Amino acid sequence: MVTGESDLLLLRDRLRAFAAERDWEQFHSPKNLSMALMVEVAELMEHFQWLTEAQSADLTPETQQAVSEELADCLLYLVRLSDRLGVDLREAALHKLEKNATKYPAEQVRGSAKKR
Amino acid sequence: MVTGESDLLLLRDRLRAFAAERDWEQFHSPKNLSMALMVEVAELMEHFQWLTEAQSADLTPETQQAVSEELADCLLYLVRLSDRLGVDLREAALHKLEKNATKYPAEQVRGSAKKR
Amino acid sequence: MVTGESDLLLLRDRLRAFAAERDWEQFHSPKNLSMALMVEVAELMEHFQWLTEAQSADLTPETQQAVSEELADCLLYLVRLSDRLGVDLREAALHKLEKNATKYPAEQVRGSAKKR
Amino acid sequence: MVTGESDLLLLRDRLRAFAAERDWEQFHSPKNLSMALMVEVAELMEHFQWLTEAQSADLTPETQQAVSEELADCLLYLVRLSDRLGVDLREAALHKLEKNATKYPAEQVRGSAKKR
Repeated sequence: MVTGESDLLLLRDRLRAFAAERDWEQFHSPKNLSMALMVEVAELMEHFQWLTEAQSADLTPETQQAVSEELADCLLYLVRLSDRLGVDLREAALHKLEKNATKYPAEQVRGSAKKR
Repeated sequence: MVTGESDLLLLRDRLRAFAAERDWEQFHSPKNLSMALMVEVAELMEHFQWLTEAQSADLTPETQQAVSEELADCLLYLVRLSDRLGVDLREAALHKLEKNATKYPAEQVRGSAKKR
Repeated sequence: MVTGESDLLLLRDRLRAFAAERDWEQFHSPKNLSMALMVEVAELMEHFQWLTEAQSADLTPETQQAVSEELADCLLYLVRLSDRLGVDLREAALHKLEKNATKYPAEQVRGSAKKR
Repeated sequence: MVTGESDLLLLRDRLRAFAAERDWEQFHSPKNLSMALMVEVAELMEHFQWLTEAQSADLTPETQQAVSEELADCLLYLVRLSDRLGVDLREAALHKLEKNATKYPAEQVRGSAKKR
C-alpha cells in the first residue's frame, strides 16, 4: 500500500479519468448513478438471500471472490456519485460517525437490536 | 486531513470500536449488513426519484445536506460489511477498475449508454 | 368484496384516476416509478433487517400493521408501473409461473437452496 | 380472463403449491423473501438506469419482454411474501388507496412533485 495517500481521493481521480476517456459523463447524473449503485448493492445482496446468517459469514472461495467484486462495484459507484454531488465522502463519513456516537450512547443501546 | 493514513482503514477501525462498545457484533452478519446497506442506498435514492436528471445535479442546500449524510451511511455500512467478510475494499476497488478498463476499451464504448 | 372482478384491474383503474386527479402522470415515467417501487420495497425490508428469520415470521401487531401498509405500497407502485408500460400483470405472472415450473422441475430441485 | 376469481388469490394458491412441491417453504421466511423481492425489483430497475425518462416509456420489443418478466417476478414474490405474513394484499392495497386519498387531497397537491 502506498502511504500518504487518500484511498477515496485516489479512486475519485481514477473514476474521473475513466469516465472522461469514455465520454460517459453525460450518463452520470446523480439520479442515474444512484440507480446504478442500488443495482450493484442488490447484486451483492443476492449472494446472501437464501443463506442463513451463519452461512453468510462462511462463504465458499468462489462466492467470496464474487462478493469481493460486488463490494468493489458498490464502492466505485458510491465514490463517483459523491464526486458528482461535490460531497467529500471521507469528511461526511467521519462526521456521521460522531453523530451516531451521540445518537446511540454505548451504555444505553448495548446489545439491543432496536438499532443495529 | 491527516496524511499517511488510509481513509478506508481508518473508518474500518472506528466502526470496529463502535460495534464492540455497543455489543452489536452479534447483529452484524454479512446477510444483515447487506440489508442495512441496501436500506441506506434506498434512502439516498429516494431524494432523486421525482427529480429530473438535471435537477438531481442541482440540489437545494437542505437536500444536499441530507444526501451527504445518506452517502456517509452507505460508506459506513459498506466498509463494515467488507470488514466482516475479510475483504480489503481498497485493493478490491483498484483491481475492479483495472478489470473494467479491459472490459470497456475507451475507443469501443465511447459515448455509448449500453454500459454506463 | 366485490366478486367477478379482477383485483389487479380494479387497482389499475383506481390508480389511473388517482394520478389523473392530481396531475401526477407527468412524474410517472417508468424510470421514476421503478425507483419509487424500489424505495417502498426497501422500507418493507427495513423491518426485517435486524430480525432473525424466525422473528421475521412472528411480528408484533404494531410491526405487522406497518408491514401490511408497506406491502400495499409495493403493490400499488407495481400495478402503476405495469400499467404505464402496457404490461398485463396477471398474464405476465401466470406465464412466468409456467416458465418457472419448467425451469425448476420439482424432482430435481427439491429442498435445495440453490434457487429459492 | 376467468371472471369471478381474484387474481391475487389465484397466484397465492399457485405459489403455495409451487413451494410445497419443491420443499422450499423452509427458505421462505419473510426476511428471505423480502430480500428476493428486492433483488427482482433491482433487476427490473436495471433496465431503466441509463435511459432518459422518455426512453423508459418507449422500450424496444426485446426490453419490453424482459421487463414484463421482471414485473411478473416482482408480483410473484410480493404475493408469496404477503401470504407468509398472513396479509390480504387486496384489502391492504384498497385500504392504502383510501388513506392516500386523504393524505394527498387532489386540490392541494395537483401537479406537485413533492410527493409522487
